[in-house]
Amino acid sequence: MIVEIITTGTELLLGEIVNENSCWLARFLNEHGYTVAYMTTVGDNPDRMKNAFITALGRADIVITSGGLGSTLGDITKKAGASAMGLSLVHVESEYKRLCAHYEHIGRPMSPQLDRQAWFCKGAFILKNDVGTASGSAVTYNGKTLIHLPGPPFEMKIMAQRYMMPWMEKRFGNQGIIRSVVLSVTGMGEPQVESLLMDLLKKQSNPTIALLARPGFIAVRVTAWGKDGEEALDRMEPVIREIEKRIPEHTTVREQGIHPVLAEELKKRELVLCAAESCTGGLIGKLMTDYPGSSSYFKGSCVTYWNEAKEHILGVKKETLDKYTAVSAETAREMAEGARKLYGAHLAVSTTGYAGPGQGERGEDPGLVYIAVSGEAGTRVYKEKFLGDRNNVRMGAAEKAMYRVWQYIHLFNIRRQ
Amino acid sequence: MIVEIITTGTELLLGEIVNENSCWLARFLNEHGYTVAYMTTVGDNPDRMKNAFITALGRADIVITSGGLGSTLGDITKKAGASAMGLSLVHVESEYKRLCAHYEHIGRPMSPQLDRQAWFCKGAFILKNDVGTASGSAVTYNGKTLIHLPGPPFEMKIMAQRYMMPWMEKRFGNQGIIRSVVLSVTGMGEPQVESLLMDLLKKQSNPTIALLARPGFIAVRVTAWGKDGEEALDRMEPVIREIEKRIPEHTTVREQGIHPVLAEELKKRELVLCAAESCTGGLIGKLMTDYPGSSSYFKGSCVTYWNEAKEHILGVKKETLDKYTAVSAETAREMAEGARKLYGAHLAVSTTGYAGPGQGERGEDPGLVYIAVSGEAGTRVYKEKFLGDRNNVRMGAAEKAMYRVWQYIHLFNIRRQ
Repeated sequence: MIVEIITTGTELLLGEIVNENSCWLARFLNEHGYTVAYMTTVGDNPDRMKNAFITALGRADIVITSGGLGSTLGDITKKAGASAMGLSLVHVESEYKRLCAHYEHIGRPMSPQLDRQAWFCKGAFILKNDVGTASGSAVTYNGKTLIHLPGPPFEMKIMAQRYMMPWMEKRFGNQGIIRSVVLSVTGMGEPQVESLLMDLLKKQSNPTIALLARPGFIAVRVTAWGKDGEEALDRMEPVIREIEKRIPEHTTVREQGIHPVLAEELKKRELVLCAAESCTGGLIGKLMTDYPGSSSYFKGSCVTYWNEAKEHILGVKKETLDKYTAVSAETAREMAEGARKLYGAHLAVSTTGYAGPGQGERGEDPGLVYIAVSGEAGTRVYKEKFLGDRNNVRMGAAEKAMYRVWQYIHLFNIRRQ
Repeated sequence: MIVEIITTGTELLLGEIVNENSCWLARFLNEHGYTVAYMTTVGDNPDRMKNAFITALGRADIVITSGGLGSTLGDITKKAGASAMGLSLVHVESEYKRLCAHYEHIGRPMSPQLDRQAWFCKGAFILKNDVGTASGSAVTYNGKTLIHLPGPPFEMKIMAQRYMMPWMEKRFGNQGIIRSVVLSVTGMGEPQVESLLMDLLKKQSNPTIALLARPGFIAVRVTAWGKDGEEALDRMEPVIREIEKRIPEHTTVREQGIHPVLAEELKKRELVLCAAESCTGGLIGKLMTDYPGSSSYFKGSCVTYWNEAKEHILGVKKETLDKYTAVSAETAREMAEGARKLYGAHLAVSTTGYAGPGQGERGEDPGLVYIAVSGEAGTRVYKEKFLGDRNNVRMGAAEKAMYRVWQYIHLFNIRRQ
């Protein structure tokens, strides 16, 4: 079944927000065995929206929209959708009653404007909204299916998981499962990785293999389809083993980026990490605490943007800062050692560098970052160079710092004492 | 001139990466007076890509693609583009020579595979790539324009700024400028804001006004077109003043989210902020250091995920943690006061809460967050409740915390002593 995702909203066309809904929905649908072949974004313009829906219904079996189900003037998705399907909108009594009860409960009168949320495509199945006001809908007509989800990400996700996918499974049957595993390769360029894997890339079908350049690493994505998760993994396994054989083990970790891998490793070894961040400004802390339960392996991060904070909180020596500046191997070393002592953690990682766009105090290029890892095996300092804008440098430095911790743990086989 | 942006790459359809290129390009084009009407994403499938290009060339004047210009097997964008335009690909000698020189310089032989990067649409203008290998191109034929940009974000941005836009301006003339200002409204729901602005929303043309629900606030976007930036701002000004009159001043700040506004305010007043973060895990630090020059108003953030770190580094009392737990008004207060002392800053903000998905240690719902702001006017603590998943809660809490600092500065008219 071919799916097209359509996100609506002029704010997306103005570039005000990044389209995270499309990304989430695509991943969710792929995991359930649906192939997303197109993603389109249109603004809140009735004619263009209707035409985009007609184009989508012509090239996909299922069109899923997100956005424009509310009660404001810009909420025109259901009208455009019905028009593109050649169906009329009807007033759904049960939804009207639900809305009346809801607005009575919060002490607002039911207005004609709010009533917009009670109109749906004729014959549509209503998708409940457990965490918001506007319901979604799903309708099949002339062999094509049109599904409307709300725009707020949280409402969209809950509705897709609880109501859309069960409806789709009932209607279209089990589509199997698509699983992806990403292996990150650090320390090689894309052409080098490609030449090592060329024959595998040429004969791929199920699983497929793709290479993607990421800030700080090359991602090798292996994607397989199976009747269930186990079959998909069985198909992937020999290919992954072959890739790992060809690319030296220590540069390869199985995951999207390094921080979930590092988290797993810390948990497994019962180690606790902390950080001292200058140029990454809290990004390592943010990434390390992205997952629930992170408090078991991450103690915290001390963001010291100022020299005096580096000195007073982390104990970096004034002479070090004066002689070598804040962006130096020596400062990185003392920051990591200071943080490890401060937090009483097994491991500490530090970053200090020039994120840009300006140059460093002694004319250094932006992108120069020192990373230090400190632990029972001593402190190791790395001088790194990142390309790109401020955001690239910061992301690259954070990923690389976490990779250096992971490498340190393996190199010295660090375990809880 | 109507533009369609097409991003290519199967990784986008698998939901592996968020499409930040589309967002950046859309904003960039809007700022230069071009209307982006559609954004499409297709995978590395020759037929689907060609058809998506044909559809786009039918409904837009200019089609701009990003991705697929490299030398790997998946790089098929130029071929699909030429085919959709009805043009052939030709070998460009000057590009071939440039590539030979480049690969000789890095000590790699020029292979037939790498030669893919020397082929372009007949008659195309070559867009130089100053920070990568693959050049882009721009060609007009039968009244339609097709532009190819590379996929890596940094390469795409530099090429768009340095070579694409000058070429477009030469070809299409000055398109004027579109400017957007976003006013953030905290403490009201979307329907409430809409009813206050209903007549303005109904009669809008230039500028246009749109409402958008964001984590922690409602964004009111005012967008105007003008011959130049001044004219656009002149058109916006009366509308913005009217909106500010209708929505109580203290809940309105002019910008996208609060952190750039807070940064401006701190700079203007020569104040220095620091943070103590628990549930936000470094996000406040990350956001406050997103812009260059942030070291003048942000000293750092102390991420204390563990109780003992709260105690030993920030000086939160053991009795407080035992009696009230780590997620309490009392702990938030002591964290902020401790951080202010630790960093020697004018202001400190702290967060402590349950980001979820699990419940708190005494059965509290996820989403409960205490925020404290400490400064010369004493410490104020706020109990907040955020809806959504872990990411929503953390983003909402970080934004709200920075808003509370901004509010504190205004409420007590804090200035550097």
